[in-house]
Amino acid sequence: MHLALDQAKRGVGLTSPNPPVGSVIVNHGKIIGQGYHHKAGSPHAEIEALRDAQTYNPKLLPGSTIYVTLEPCCTQGRTGPCTEAIKAAGIKRVVWGALDPNPRHAGRAQEILTSAGISVSTGVLDAECREMIRPFSKWITTGLPYVIAKVGQSLDGRITRPPGEGQWITSESARSHGRRLRARVDAIIVGAGTIRADNPQLTLRDSKSTLKEQPYRVILSRSCNMPETSHVFTDEHKNRTWVLRDLAFLDALKELGQRGIVSVLIEGGADVLGQAFAAQAVDEIVWYIAPRISGSAGLSSIGGAPLASSVEIADVKVMPLGDNVCITGHPVWPKPQTQPAAVQP
Amino acid sequence: MHLALDQAKRGVGLTSPNPPVGSVIVNHGKIIGQGYHHKAGSPHAEIEALRDAQTYNPKLLPGSTIYVTLEPCCTQGRTGPCTEAIKAAGIKRVVWGALDPNPRHAGRAQEILTSAGISVSTGVLDAECREMIRPFSKWITTGLPYVIAKVGQSLDGRITRPPGEGQWITSESARSHGRRLRARVDAIIVGAGTIRADNPQLTLRDSKSTLKEQPYRVILSRSCNMPETSHVFTDEHKNRTWVLRDLAFLDALKELGQRGIVSVLIEGGADVLGQAFAAQAVDEIVWYIAPRISGSAGLSSIGGAPLASSVEIADVKVMPLGDNVCITGHPVWPKPQTQPAAVQP
Repeated sequence: MHLALDQAKRGVGLTSPNPPVGSVIVNHGKIIGQGYHHKAGSPHAEIEALRDAQTYNPKLLPGSTIYVTLEPCCTQGRTGPCTEAIKAAGIKRVVWGALDPNPRHAGRAQEILTSAGISVSTGVLDAECREMIRPFSKWITTGLPYVIAKVGQSLDGRITRPPGEGQWITSESARSHGRRLRARVDAIIVGAGTIRADNPQLTLRDSKSTLKEQPYRVILSRSCNMPETSHVFTDEHKNRTWVLRDLAFLDALKELGQRGIVSVLIEGGADVLGQAFAAQAVDEIVWYIAPRISGSAGLSSIGGAPLASSVEIADVKVMPLGDNVCITGHPVWPKPQTQPAAVQP
Repeated sequence: MHLALDQAKRGVGLTSPNPPVGSVIVNHGKIIGQGYHHKAGSPHAEIEALRDAQTYNPKLLPGSTIYVTLEPCCTQGRTGPCTEAIKAAGIKRVVWGALDPNPRHAGRAQEILTSAGISVSTGVLDAECREMIRPFSKWITTGLPYVIAKVGQSLDGRITRPPGEGQWITSESARSHGRRLRARVDAIIVGAGTIRADNPQLTLRDSKSTLKEQPYRVILSRSCNMPETSHVFTDEHKNRTWVLRDLAFLDALKELGQRGIVSVLIEGGADVLGQAFAAQAVDEIVWYIAPRISGSAGLSSIGGAPLASSVEIADVKVMPLGDNVCITGHPVWPKPQTQPAAVQP
């Protein structure tokens, strides 16, 4: 299953609105096939692994075991049901990690496969497999994209330096690390103020992959008052820039979810980040802290209206990046009173 | 010399206005004596080591080598000159680390010892030995105490939480770590607002040592408007509380330096920290960051007037403390145009 997770990782950021999934087929301790879901509309991971085995080890396929990070689908989508392909290939045993969070699929594969005389094991490396599909799980169950909040600040929590100094606070290596987060998401959110102040490109220029499309650049604006010459309106990706006017943060997220955006990265400014935390809409934080004191002239990293209560961060990881440090974790939100209705994408 | 540094460490925080110093005496690869400076007025480290050797290895003392972290003194102070004691003991070779920053001593020991036929080596583990006496070096050359600035804040740089939540932001282990900094200094500085808001004890209750006296608790106040029942005015250490009224930060530091305070720890609040950075008076920072977002209702860790320029931090160390993190370093200040006059303590 660790190898299947390695396969799944290759699809992270490329498969929306599907989750990244990986699969490995084993016969008597020998790996005879492996594959991952490349992108929506392409074959699922199980089919990729079956094809790999059929191509190179066709005689070993009957009687083998297939490992897959996510419960196989059992319905006809843009591709056929994986449960049928598994049965047809003569697989003897199916092992999966996470249950499919999609209510159309969840738990149904086990019955279908068992009825066909195939042995099934579930929940193997469950935590790791669920972590892999965390953005998809949120989107499929709430209709809202998974939200990563990124901040680059001074020790004293400022995102700007005194007048006359440079724009950058964090180091080049921290900024490059931060830009690579873009490869994980379908869209990047910034406020119009960030476009006016910094004119950012918000592109994938640090990513080595040529498979990943430019994430949508979503600008939240009240006035739509931004220079027409801004990078996001004029560069080669200008058709991947959306301006959402006068929407509350949660409404903007809903709109993006309906457009099939499974994951977003908020890159500022302070007001948009403040709104996102106030809306209890942040799922993951990535905080870059540089060894510098900006003082009270600097803008605080979290702005906007005060939060009614402070937000605890769990699953904290601290990663030094030279003399900068990156702190990541997951905000802990109160459980909603009622489960939101599932959305059918 | 590493062993001599270990000896010196035992005196950190106890020797003001003298620096912590350690010494080891070696004859033919065998350690025959060691010691450290315990407190001002007590014997210097060399004398402690010589006495140790005279007590347990008197026959091995003549012809031996003495290691000392700091250049031996050559003048009569509250104790006799160490150079004379070294000569009288029949020591053959003297090895030291740092040059004495005290202009009354610096460099003179080498000539005195060499004239007496004793071999001298200097600058051994120079950086480590100079680091050990960093507070003393600042005070003896500028008249100002060495300043450590301590902050405990949320990820977004706030030192308070929204109304109705608890007072604490950092974890108990981070706060205990922070309280142990008090054992390194002669005085703790806070603003009157901190006394009014938090009524802190500012005591050594985490320190296991019974040798260390309660550091002076220095309160900077404009109005002297503080509750008479505050811990610092009523507890068993109330005679170690000083209120400095209506002094600019640098003037307060000068006053403390004249009172023989070699090192101070600033524990807040935001205004006092802002003044200390604005005065370019901070020598070391210790920043505790907790995984929590306080939002814009929280007080920023650095307040007061804006800084004219941001402050770079060098020698950065990042130390995770559970899910909190401690970041330390030394602010980089522009070199003064003229060297301040040396002060004779």
